[in-house]
Amino acid sequence: MGDTAGGWTRRDFLMRLGALAGTSAVYQAMASLGMLVVPPAYAGPPRLPGGSGRGKKVVIVGAGIAGLTSAWELSKAGYEITLLEATQHVGGRNRTVRHGDTLHEVDSKQVCSFDDEPHLYFNAGPARLPYHHGAVMAYCREFGVALEPFINTNGAAWLHDSKRFGGKPQRQHRVQTDTRGYLSELLAKALSPASLGKAMSAEEVDGMKLFLRAYGDLTPDYTYKGSNRAGSVNDSVMELGKPHAPLPMHDLFGGEFMQWKVSFAEDVNQHPTMMQPVGGMDMIPRAFLKRVGHMITRGAPVTSIMNEERGVRVRYQAPDGSGEREILADFCINNAPGYLVLGMHNNFSAAYREGLEKIRPGKLFKIAFQGKRRFWEEDDQIFGGISWTDQDITQMWYPPHGFMSKKGVLLASYTFAPQIGDKWSAMTPAARLRAAIEQCSQLHPGFGDKVEAGVSVAWQKVPYMFGCAPELEEQDRAKYFPRLRQAEGRHYLVGDQMTYQSGWQEGAIRSAHLVVEDIAERTATA
Amino acid sequence: MGDTAGGWTRRDFLMRLGALAGTSAVYQAMASLGMLVVPPAYAGPPRLPGGSGRGKKVVIVGAGIAGLTSAWELSKAGYEITLLEATQHVGGRNRTVRHGDTLHEVDSKQVCSFDDEPHLYFNAGPARLPYHHGAVMAYCREFGVALEPFINTNGAAWLHDSKRFGGKPQRQHRVQTDTRGYLSELLAKALSPASLGKAMSAEEVDGMKLFLRAYGDLTPDYTYKGSNRAGSVNDSVMELGKPHAPLPMHDLFGGEFMQWKVSFAEDVNQHPTMMQPVGGMDMIPRAFLKRVGHMITRGAPVTSIMNEERGVRVRYQAPDGSGEREILADFCINNAPGYLVLGMHNNFSAAYREGLEKIRPGKLFKIAFQGKRRFWEEDDQIFGGISWTDQDITQMWYPPHGFMSKKGVLLASYTFAPQIGDKWSAMTPAARLRAAIEQCSQLHPGFGDKVEAGVSVAWQKVPYMFGCAPELEEQDRAKYFPRLRQAEGRHYLVGDQMTYQSGWQEGAIRSAHLVVEDIAERTATA
Repeated sequence: MGDTAGGWTRRDFLMRLGALAGTSAVYQAMASLGMLVVPPAYAGPPRLPGGSGRGKKVVIVGAGIAGLTSAWELSKAGYEITLLEATQHVGGRNRTVRHGDTLHEVDSKQVCSFDDEPHLYFNAGPARLPYHHGAVMAYCREFGVALEPFINTNGAAWLHDSKRFGGKPQRQHRVQTDTRGYLSELLAKALSPASLGKAMSAEEVDGMKLFLRAYGDLTPDYTYKGSNRAGSVNDSVMELGKPHAPLPMHDLFGGEFMQWKVSFAEDVNQHPTMMQPVGGMDMIPRAFLKRVGHMITRGAPVTSIMNEERGVRVRYQAPDGSGEREILADFCINNAPGYLVLGMHNNFSAAYREGLEKIRPGKLFKIAFQGKRRFWEEDDQIFGGISWTDQDITQMWYPPHGFMSKKGVLLASYTFAPQIGDKWSAMTPAARLRAAIEQCSQLHPGFGDKVEAGVSVAWQKVPYMFGCAPELEEQDRAKYFPRLRQAEGRHYLVGDQMTYQSGWQEGAIRSAHLVVEDIAERTATA
Repeated sequence: MGDTAGGWTRRDFLMRLGALAGTSAVYQAMASLGMLVVPPAYAGPPRLPGGSGRGKKVVIVGAGIAGLTSAWELSKAGYEITLLEATQHVGGRNRTVRHGDTLHEVDSKQVCSFDDEPHLYFNAGPARLPYHHGAVMAYCREFGVALEPFINTNGAAWLHDSKRFGGKPQRQHRVQTDTRGYLSELLAKALSPASLGKAMSAEEVDGMKLFLRAYGDLTPDYTYKGSNRAGSVNDSVMELGKPHAPLPMHDLFGGEFMQWKVSFAEDVNQHPTMMQPVGGMDMIPRAFLKRVGHMITRGAPVTSIMNEERGVRVRYQAPDGSGEREILADFCINNAPGYLVLGMHNNFSAAYREGLEKIRPGKLFKIAFQGKRRFWEEDDQIFGGISWTDQDITQMWYPPHGFMSKKGVLLASYTFAPQIGDKWSAMTPAARLRAAIEQCSQLHPGFGDKVEAGVSVAWQKVPYMFGCAPELEEQDRAKYFPRLRQAEGRHYLVGDQMTYQSGWQEGAIRSAHLVVEDIAERTATA
């Protein structure tokens, strides 16, 4: 393998750097083999024999993505499905808000006043699809949901740290370029014969230094003096480009904000190519709705789930207000968040309830405005992407579609830190908009005069949700997932909460597939 | 400023690394000021007084982007324009090839047999727009040319070096992740108290190390052991992701190929958000055509341009084959490549001709195929972006539009190195396709069975072009641009060849604006 045959090796290299501790021969062997490992591909939805579910009743609680997936896959095999949805909305947290839509929180009601145009929408829940989320991509393909690129990383968008660069927002591409430049220079200098490199052969040092020169755009003497990669101070069309002087090193590397923001798009779920459905994320639940809509009863909150000898008895409030109804089914698939399942009357075991109690509500929060014009494009040359700030708004998102059209809907805030979510949640919708306008003005001066029709969603106050991206603490997942993923009698819990992809539709779908397969197996062997 | 007040500074840091040479206090002051520099924004097209050109005749040679721009801006001010185009095609190298189109080279003719669908096209010339190319963006806005994202960087696309990783293509995101990981580990270890860091305060070392930990996704002891950023070896939806072992360091850093490919998208013209016109790049010349079409004579090659006392006399072949015609105009704007201008009969000065002689033809080359299905999406999860290889095909491009539709047109090769361009150019169209299929199979096994309707363009053999992205050698630009940008009598040269943005439409447009302004000034002061 390349790691051991000829030339210098990683192990040799680190040994010569005097930094071998923790690096074992086994690890090196793994490194050599790394190139041979093939990541597991999504194998497709469960393939149930046609008619195999005939005569079996399944009650599904909640028309979120996991509930819809369960309904679709089981109904194809002949199961008789009743899908009970507490609200009037299908899709769960997959919700696209448009002109005239109403957003309910426990103590407020907002009506969206965006213009009535197809491209003016706000994805209040999930808003992007990683290309490698095979299950959701497969349903988009199966259902003909048209996808287009979602711009998650834009070099022109802002990084704003109120304590760095004099509080002045910096273009992300400039921060990235200078970061690469400085790191490359520092490492190249550390490798010089005058320092650590002494123990290395001149050839080995040269190979790494050539790489660093390209990586950081260094001068021939391995110094970083700024780079035209980050744009120029002059007109680089008609003249030879002259680079900006590098940003102060102290501001780039000294603070927590830049430490993490510079690496955001490296995450496996965040790197390109990301996508979005054309016309809004709810094109996905709409596609399910076409196929399973007739199985859904809306406005029917479930109050009780009791395992019995011959089935599972599910009680719910009738949509017409006439009291409770009940169904005795063979199985119940529950798409509610675990902390709400506990509020349904049940006879679950202590061990199962202990697992449910570990599921915590996420506190995600978003604000959207309609731009009276697309000032982020016209004034700042920002076409899609995300700006980051250390203020409470945390992120601003620019629409990756409808470029150069008259108006656009942008996110003024997307936050996920619980303590920040609590702050926003405690404010009235009007107060949220005022605060967001003030903070956005740090990135886009005069923001308040340029936007209209603001709307917000604090998921922790949305009825029958009371949170977004529910999940177990990291240390609880390995401990409680095995029990929670097993049926409790005839009751199954589904949703992104049951996976390592909380907050992503991929998790919701995959959890549903797991349950569908288990039900099929129990049906076949009954 | 942040660079000198409090905490460690870049200068201190480098001094302590014993690497101060070449770093001056002046440079540090520039660095501090860097954040205050505002890059010059494009100021808009020339604004000529209405009617200011009335009674003035301008002959424009060539309907490329610079010629079309000149025609549009001058005609708005009342100039009488005659635009002579040698071929039947308007747009110059901005050419979108679709079902039924014919591609002529000096010794071959290809008819494109893509299916007749709007999204199945091949941009034979320019194919992407950087967001900061203000002039071309402004025309798209003015003309209502709809833009959509162009995916230039895709973490899922391949990097293929036949001499590295056993010749097995690697996902770009994995190469990037491991590169960041290794570099961060090496620098963090170099900064340890045991080595160079000794001269730094513990606090300073810690700040930089925390940054490196995030940048490289290092373990708490600053070791890189692989990262889930680059995907996982297991099913990371249902299980906790386990990273790939890192790729062998020797393969990542030892070769020229990776040195440059890892940095490609850092270039100011290559980083996101890039865009393309919906439906093909020629939506731009088509928009010009609507406005200046009536001024254009096609099939009219210019044979002679003579400066005279009272005007410039332009002779051309009549499209009907009936011989030569001539026009005596006030000005001539020439959009032909400099090396072809020299072939037109003229009475230019020696100094001007010397400049023209310095303009070299670029040898860009492209091959496109129609996929019988979108196997790059279905089999490899590649949605848009570019794969790189050290084979002659150099690049493969995947369409950033029409995701998940039945078919798609992908580039099997885009090359710009002159020696490689010469190799492709010397082959027949059929031989090019055979060679490309063989090379593409290294990245996409079975490529030949999955594609159809191949077509290629060697710009150096296209009549009245004989090259693409003409430009002066780096050292000749500063010397000859001043003279070439001046009028030679009443004759002006335009095109990307006259700028530092050769091969980009932005250069073509801006060169035309310069000339339009000069003509307007001469007209006003005449």
